[in-house]
Amino acid sequence: MMAPAAARLGVHLRVLAEAADSSAAQVVVDAPVGRADDLETVRSLVVPARDAGPAGSRALVLTFEHEHVPAEVLAALEREVPVRPAPAALLHAQDKIAMRRRLTGLGVPCPSWTALPREATEARAALALFLVGRDEAVVKTARGGYDGRGVRIVTDAEQVADWLVDAAEGGPALLVEERVPFVRELSALIARRPSGGMATWPVVESIQRDGVCAEVIAPAPGLDPALVAEAEDIARTVAEGLDVCGVLAVELFEAPDGRLLVNELAMRPHNSGHWTIDGAATSQFEQHLRAVLDLPLGPTTTRAPWTVMVNVLGARADPTGGLPAVFREVPEARVDLYGKAVRPGRKLGHVNVVGEDLETVRGAARRAAQHLQRGEPQ
Amino acid sequence: MMAPAAARLGVHLRVLAEAADSSAAQVVVDAPVGRADDLETVRSLVVPARDAGPAGSRALVLTFEHEHVPAEVLAALEREVPVRPAPAALLHAQDKIAMRRRLTGLGVPCPSWTALPREATEARAALALFLVGRDEAVVKTARGGYDGRGVRIVTDAEQVADWLVDAAEGGPALLVEERVPFVRELSALIARRPSGGMATWPVVESIQRDGVCAEVIAPAPGLDPALVAEAEDIARTVAEGLDVCGVLAVELFEAPDGRLLVNELAMRPHNSGHWTIDGAATSQFEQHLRAVLDLPLGPTTTRAPWTVMVNVLGARADPTGGLPAVFREVPEARVDLYGKAVRPGRKLGHVNVVGEDLETVRGAARRAAQHLQRGEPQ
Repeated sequence: MMAPAAARLGVHLRVLAEAADSSAAQVVVDAPVGRADDLETVRSLVVPARDAGPAGSRALVLTFEHEHVPAEVLAALEREVPVRPAPAALLHAQDKIAMRRRLTGLGVPCPSWTALPREATEARAALALFLVGRDEAVVKTARGGYDGRGVRIVTDAEQVADWLVDAAEGGPALLVEERVPFVRELSALIARRPSGGMATWPVVESIQRDGVCAEVIAPAPGLDPALVAEAEDIARTVAEGLDVCGVLAVELFEAPDGRLLVNELAMRPHNSGHWTIDGAATSQFEQHLRAVLDLPLGPTTTRAPWTVMVNVLGARADPTGGLPAVFREVPEARVDLYGKAVRPGRKLGHVNVVGEDLETVRGAARRAAQHLQRGEPQ
Repeated sequence: MMAPAAARLGVHLRVLAEAADSSAAQVVVDAPVGRADDLETVRSLVVPARDAGPAGSRALVLTFEHEHVPAEVLAALEREVPVRPAPAALLHAQDKIAMRRRLTGLGVPCPSWTALPREATEARAALALFLVGRDEAVVKTARGGYDGRGVRIVTDAEQVADWLVDAAEGGPALLVEERVPFVRELSALIARRPSGGMATWPVVESIQRDGVCAEVIAPAPGLDPALVAEAEDIARTVAEGLDVCGVLAVELFEAPDGRLLVNELAMRPHNSGHWTIDGAATSQFEQHLRAVLDLPLGPTTTRAPWTVMVNVLGARADPTGGLPAVFREVPEARVDLYGKAVRPGRKLGHVNVVGEDLETVRGAARRAAQHLQRGEPQ
């Protein structure tokens, strides 16, 4: 989704594609295929072979659309090109223990948490201690989780017995957190450039189903202005405190007692910001490009009172088959399809609807997404 | 500019690029390089070689971003793939004599005109006759002109002596038209799908300098509602009468006596429609894709009372150098740069500004375009 923004601004993108038919490779001309954990592959993105022709110039900046690039690869590249966000910042989006430790140090409100020791007996004891006085807790792998993976709600250590073994054997370290009885999930999206300018979009409500983002409502309906200000403050504190460059999404819990607690961080354009493509003066994708190139950031005002984004999740059919029905029956829908092969539950695209009345907008976005999930032509 | 629209909808574009570094080839993955007047080259777009891998599937439809594909190439391809607009329609955007003849037949108002005979003496006589009672007239080559090329204002046949020789030797045929003392130029943009649905955008004012479009104001300020309706009627009459599929731009003169006269036709997304990228619910590029794929057309409502588009014309510097200044000083500007090499007067990009007050919007768009033409970093 960064490709259209780059195309408009005349920014040449060179993308490391996971496969020749990946979403990025379908829409980015200069998209070598390779693994992000291989230094020479990533290095060839930054300093292409001399005979690479017009696509052969050295990169001005290296950035990310996911967090899974090993620290040692990034550290080596940092000597050759500005890496934005820098590895020292990105660590906090890669490792939940590092994130909790740092945010706690910055005074940013987080759920109660503790890292579990790697030794299994000690880990079981620490988990049992954390569960005292609690019905349940949330155990997470510090690295590698996404869309609900790497997160389990537990009442007993047996429920993460496999992870305890993995952690003891050098797999992902574990942490345990209180299960916050939240009212809803919010997301504060911000962009920051190296020279320090920051811009926040309105705080949104993010609705998850089965651990996966299903809908986003921008702005979060009825959110107390004091909480809006607090969420934006948290986003600014994290962006500055961690020296983030680019887009940062701070996922938040709104607790029943009115507290905001940080759930997760993402240092890249994020699903909770896809609404900005149609609903904001500057999309998160264009803003990320501006930020990592240290260009002035764009305005983040909304185009209308409400934008609702609904994800198109994989069902049985190719969602492109649903386009005629969407165009005919929900003409106000703005559709993004990612060109991915259909797999149940996979995010294959999303729909934005922008308008004046929340229930109308939300209903339209849901209907459009349903047509695409059904995927039947006509 | 069709690439971002195609990317969003998951439509695979295969583009015939004029050169490996052309604008299209920079942003479209599947972009073989070749000439549009070579049948086998164009045919290979429609039916790729069997070993072309994921990009190798047969095209669903063939369409255009310029008119310069020879009729014999199109006629041959029509047997293999739906060609939209069809060659029989496209002829009227390729050949100004065919266009004038057909529009006159449809009762669409045109300037007074006549085709000049190919034989030079007869042509001089016909031109002299046309000039009787007129101070001047406009001679045009029937084919091949654009951006003011192929158009000369004459008082005497000597001023087109070279063209008369060319025409006699089998070069482009010539026509002569009255020089309309127009108040301003308008453009009526419409899209039509094969099954007949049509959608018009608001009629715009197009401001030319040196024969090249400089600015577009959407909608045309202060245009009499009766003339708006007439312009839309003309667009619909032409689109239906010529069986156009895709986007059609009807360039019009507004005469001092309140008549509208057709100047030119373009059967593709057109410079006078670039404002729709930011100013309309559906851009002309997305609409063209929908139309040629026979999908329901999108809404053409405006996002705000005014949109002004200003072209970025080549001066001395690369316009990307002006981006920081635009972003800093005209944050509301939406910029498209085409990745073309700088040549004086060449269209290198455009700026859209959308807003409530025309003079504010127009001033902002002009300032932004000036920064890009100056092209100085910082």
